[in-house]
Amino acid sequence: MRNICLDIQYDGTDFCGWQIQHGQRTVQGELEHALHRLHRHPVSILTAGRTDSGVHALGQVGNFRSDMDTIPAEKFALALNSLLPEDVRIQNSREVHPDFHATYNAAERRYRYYLYASRHVNPLLDRYRLRVASIPPLPLLNRLCASLIGTRDFASFASPKEEQTTVRTITSAVFFPDRDGTVFEIAGSGFLWKMVRTIIGTVLAVSERPDAIAEFNRILAARNRQAAGKTAAPHGLVLYRVIYPDATGGSQEDAKL
Amino acid sequence: MRNICLDIQYDGTDFCGWQIQHGQRTVQGELEHALHRLHRHPVSILTAGRTDSGVHALGQVGNFRSDMDTIPAEKFALALNSLLPEDVRIQNSREVHPDFHATYNAAERRYRYYLYASRHVNPLLDRYRLRVASIPPLPLLNRLCASLIGTRDFASFASPKEEQTTVRTITSAVFFPDRDGTVFEIAGSGFLWKMVRTIIGTVLAVSERPDAIAEFNRILAARNRQAAGKTAAPHGLVLYRVIYPDATGGSQEDAKL
Repeated sequence: MRNICLDIQYDGTDFCGWQIQHGQRTVQGELEHALHRLHRHPVSILTAGRTDSGVHALGQVGNFRSDMDTIPAEKFALALNSLLPEDVRIQNSREVHPDFHATYNAAERRYRYYLYASRHVNPLLDRYRLRVASIPPLPLLNRLCASLIGTRDFASFASPKEEQTTVRTITSAVFFPDRDGTVFEIAGSGFLWKMVRTIIGTVLAVSERPDAIAEFNRILAARNRQAAGKTAAPHGLVLYRVIYPDATGGSQEDAKL
Repeated sequence: MRNICLDIQYDGTDFCGWQIQHGQRTVQGELEHALHRLHRHPVSILTAGRTDSGVHALGQVGNFRSDMDTIPAEKFALALNSLLPEDVRIQNSREVHPDFHATYNAAERRYRYYLYASRHVNPLLDRYRLRVASIPPLPLLNRLCASLIGTRDFASFASPKEEQTTVRTITSAVFFPDRDGTVFEIAGSGFLWKMVRTIIGTVLAVSERPDAIAEFNRILAARNRQAAGKTAAPHGLVLYRVIYPDATGGSQEDAKL
């Protein structure tokens, strides 16, 4: 059995997230359906990040075991794309070490959240970007972000259903301008459910207050979801890149949006 | 009767173009439906450019006559947006000179055609950008473009159904790189039906030939649609901006994609 690793991109708009759910259209469901058709028996796929309903991916990574020994590993991309709907695409396929596991081996996950400021919806931006009335000053946003770096208890940005530890390590968090607005990029070893979107909702809410930095630190220290702001909409969020500790796994190319 | 001018943006994906057609979903149809509901009687709208099925707009301009004298002109944007579907949005509304006509007064129309190079579809780019296997060298593309500048007979890029003169004036035509690929921007007083898309299809086809520049000039001189290449897909094309000779008309702000 070969272990095949995939670089996966999808437009999350019409998916109920990654994880397979009965009666719902999911990315995992579409991929496993295509893998089943290709192999003529069920094949399950592991993933770097189980993105939520409406969240997009440019740098998702998955792996599966295949008993199809004749097809060159890099041809799985083409074969799967011919069986998949247009809103999920395989960019690359390659054989990896038998022990490679897309979930457990991921060293860093990098998400981007895209914002634009406008009085009215821009129909060509609104599919992949959250509209806000105005974007707070970047120096303030980046001073708030600085509090996120390190290994911390992010219970304030966790969902009530979180059962395990809410401690995570964030290695970078920064807002920067791009052609169409502002991008928030956050990287870490792992994220809690809805954590990035709750950080965005909280940062945008507190940035309007005169005591924004003190308030943000209070929220972080509270370790209580009630202290934080709203969870921002999913359509601005993109799983941008997953990094593996060596070349056996995820793509080394930069994704593009 | 006041004359109201609108800056209009739309995602053309789910529209059969601008012009109203029985039984089809069109931008004009949606706008006139919203205007009818607002005024409680039919109101027709004039436009700077009748975009084709699947073509987007960031800088479309339209105008209509209104007998609603109490509403401030700038509030029409909000009122219409509350009645329009999400894929067409009014960015600005303002009162203009009674003689202003969005079609006849337009001094320059500026279109952009967006390209990206990839072996596989990128689901987050593919809605507004044409995928090509590779993008020819920009210096070559821009040498081809130089032949388009001026007042010329563009019959080679016209559709057979064109009945009137095929002479048009092109003031600029340039390819430039952007974050996600390459953009073709072309400006002129007016364009023939499908002209921009046929130019793109032809430029991409001839750029693979060793005699690309001579061949492109032969096609242009032939004044025959059969000489040119295929019409490129509509989803990469955006009506980017319309310029009016004075401040009575179109927006002076730059559109964004």
